[in-house]
Amino acid sequence: MLIVQKFGGTSVGDLDRIQNVANRIARTVSEGHQVVVVVSAMSGETNKLVSYAEHFSDNPERAEVDMLLSSGERVTAALLSIALNEMGYSATSMTGRRAGIITDMVHTKARIERIDAAPMKNALAEGKIIVIAGFQGVNEEGRVTTLGRGGSDLSAVAVAGAIGADLCEIYTDVDGIYTTDPRIEPTAKKLDKISYDEMLELASLGAKVLQNRSVELAKKLNVNLVTRSSFSDAEGTLITKEENIMEKPLVSGIALDRNQARIALEGVVNRPGIASDIFGALATSNVNVDMIIQTSGHDDTTNMDFTVPQNELNDARSVVEQFCKKHEIKESTFDESICKVSIVGVGMKSHTGVAAKAFATMAKENINIQMISTSEIKVSMVVDEKYAELAVRALHNAYELDK
Amino acid sequence: MLIVQKFGGTSVGDLDRIQNVANRIARTVSEGHQVVVVVSAMSGETNKLVSYAEHFSDNPERAEVDMLLSSGERVTAALLSIALNEMGYSATSMTGRRAGIITDMVHTKARIERIDAAPMKNALAEGKIIVIAGFQGVNEEGRVTTLGRGGSDLSAVAVAGAIGADLCEIYTDVDGIYTTDPRIEPTAKKLDKISYDEMLELASLGAKVLQNRSVELAKKLNVNLVTRSSFSDAEGTLITKEENIMEKPLVSGIALDRNQARIALEGVVNRPGIASDIFGALATSNVNVDMIIQTSGHDDTTNMDFTVPQNELNDARSVVEQFCKKHEIKESTFDESICKVSIVGVGMKSHTGVAAKAFATMAKENINIQMISTSEIKVSMVVDEKYAELAVRALHNAYELDK
Repeated sequence: MLIVQKFGGTSVGDLDRIQNVANRIARTVSEGHQVVVVVSAMSGETNKLVSYAEHFSDNPERAEVDMLLSSGERVTAALLSIALNEMGYSATSMTGRRAGIITDMVHTKARIERIDAAPMKNALAEGKIIVIAGFQGVNEEGRVTTLGRGGSDLSAVAVAGAIGADLCEIYTDVDGIYTTDPRIEPTAKKLDKISYDEMLELASLGAKVLQNRSVELAKKLNVNLVTRSSFSDAEGTLITKEENIMEKPLVSGIALDRNQARIALEGVVNRPGIASDIFGALATSNVNVDMIIQTSGHDDTTNMDFTVPQNELNDARSVVEQFCKKHEIKESTFDESICKVSIVGVGMKSHTGVAAKAFATMAKENINIQMISTSEIKVSMVVDEKYAELAVRALHNAYELDK
Repeated sequence: MLIVQKFGGTSVGDLDRIQNVANRIARTVSEGHQVVVVVSAMSGETNKLVSYAEHFSDNPERAEVDMLLSSGERVTAALLSIALNEMGYSATSMTGRRAGIITDMVHTKARIERIDAAPMKNALAEGKIIVIAGFQGVNEEGRVTTLGRGGSDLSAVAVAGAIGADLCEIYTDVDGIYTTDPRIEPTAKKLDKISYDEMLELASLGAKVLQNRSVELAKKLNVNLVTRSSFSDAEGTLITKEENIMEKPLVSGIALDRNQARIALEGVVNRPGIASDIFGALATSNVNVDMIIQTSGHDDTTNMDFTVPQNELNDARSVVEQFCKKHEIKESTFDESICKVSIVGVGMKSHTGVAAKAFATMAKENINIQMISTSEIKVSMVVDEKYAELAVRALHNAYELDK
């Protein structure tokens, strides 16, 4: 198989860990696989460089920040190549440029536009292990760019797509995706397989493992993603397309999102354009609105309930207050003491009663459901934050996810 | 004027020093000059990276070492650009690649083959301050190369030549070239100007300041070099072509080289090819022979005296002992307790009596001269090491270099 292995900052956090990573790569090669490696900077390096830049400027020029930050991954890539060569393997490091990763012009959060895979394919044909400095590419002007948070994962997925890798393994310090957060429900089990869409819906479970941007790219490029631990030999979780999952579980996992706040508006004049007015203004202020519920109120007015990320509530509040003043809205409330519990599973598409069981479970625990939203593969419920753990445990148990 | 300013590792050793360097550049720009900056890695960085590489291998692949080491200069260049931009100047950093520095294929000690100056000229035309990561270039395959010891100086001189700079200032922690080592002779004076050839002959005085490789390149490209301190405003020493020096001093400086050993062979059979035999073998063993004196001995034999660097004496000894066995040479002696004192000055070309005064000075001090060698602008004498300081002081005084 042709395998891309990506190692994050913690996995290459010191020289001994880099040697461990080299040993793991060597083992994969010994098993007969071809390996392309993508590495992050040694943990702490990027933060150190950022603090250096901030010593000089609160708003350093982004092209210079990219020049600065891209150095960390180069160091890891070179060191890992040296370690592999010393062990008798033939490894060659590649910068984003040498790996043919072409991005747009947006410094510090560039998007990969295309990959010229010829240099990588040539090196693979020569039997080389390729070690790519992640997180970086080069724009049409030839200047180094970086890909923003989670950038090395993106490099790995994009490279895997470009060279047609069979597998893209993302190594971190956790060993996969669980049915729910094991700190809340100790019987949570590691999933063997999960579909891209489920993974996207379970983002809050996997956010520390995989960013949605990488999962979306893997889905688009049809890359088989595996997240696993660099500190154990445990098999990880395969994130793949739905067709590759033979036994589709009804429910794959229970996600909890505490970063939620609810805004309720009562007595909104019910006329065309009013929703567009408030949600347009929120979008302009970069507030991400999640659930929206509109119900009719007294007279000709309606009530609007919606949720936003808690850390965007202040921005949302000023938009909403302006809106209320303009439209003489009687009452607005802002509630941070909520959370969102979601049941995710591709099996829902073809099975009924999944949502009903969720509501029944909440009722049995005397948990009031404040808002509901559903998609083809997800049921989300907003409940009082104090019930967060109870709701997760009850649902995990109700769908027998510990089995 | 168009000025290249090069700052070494000590000058950019921490964030405050980088800010100081930014201030100095800003001052130069405010005076109406255009500035291209070349920087080294922050002091200690390169050694740290080398020790990382050595953790994995005693003999790391050189292309990977270049990938590794070239990151240090990138960091300094980006930080300095950020500092300058914050101060309201328009600066842009350039890697060796972006600055168009093309080298040969020899990793870790590449030679600059050519510079495509168009990107630099364009940036200068836009009024930008260019900050180049020194010590690095890119080979025809597009891989990063480094230039070896003193590489950032070479970058600066080559860039100055390529863009036709009026001046190339090398900033270090000393403020110029002195008539002799001030630790030996406190009345030593800083030279205002000196010719390339004198500088090359005075290498032992300036080795800590400038490597011969950079001076030779400056001579070849006709670049006006200035060495000065980044920690003071004192004017430095201009190293330029002889024609630019109006008043040519008889003697510019007294150099002392303690890294000398003398090998004496007595009773060497006097036949064609014998000199080629011994000195060819020494060259093959990478021993640099400096002075050679051959005198006729008893019978048909000759005596051969020559000097080698003290740190190459062990290599030389084994070559010489083999040679003596092969040719049945009676006696060989190896003497490390010598040093070489040199008087250097372009004025010697047109004046007689310079050497005679040197010999007279030695005689007056009762110092025996063991070997003599002269060139157009230099008189070198080998003397017992214990007279080193005395010889330097006596000559400094005899040629009135304190005036």
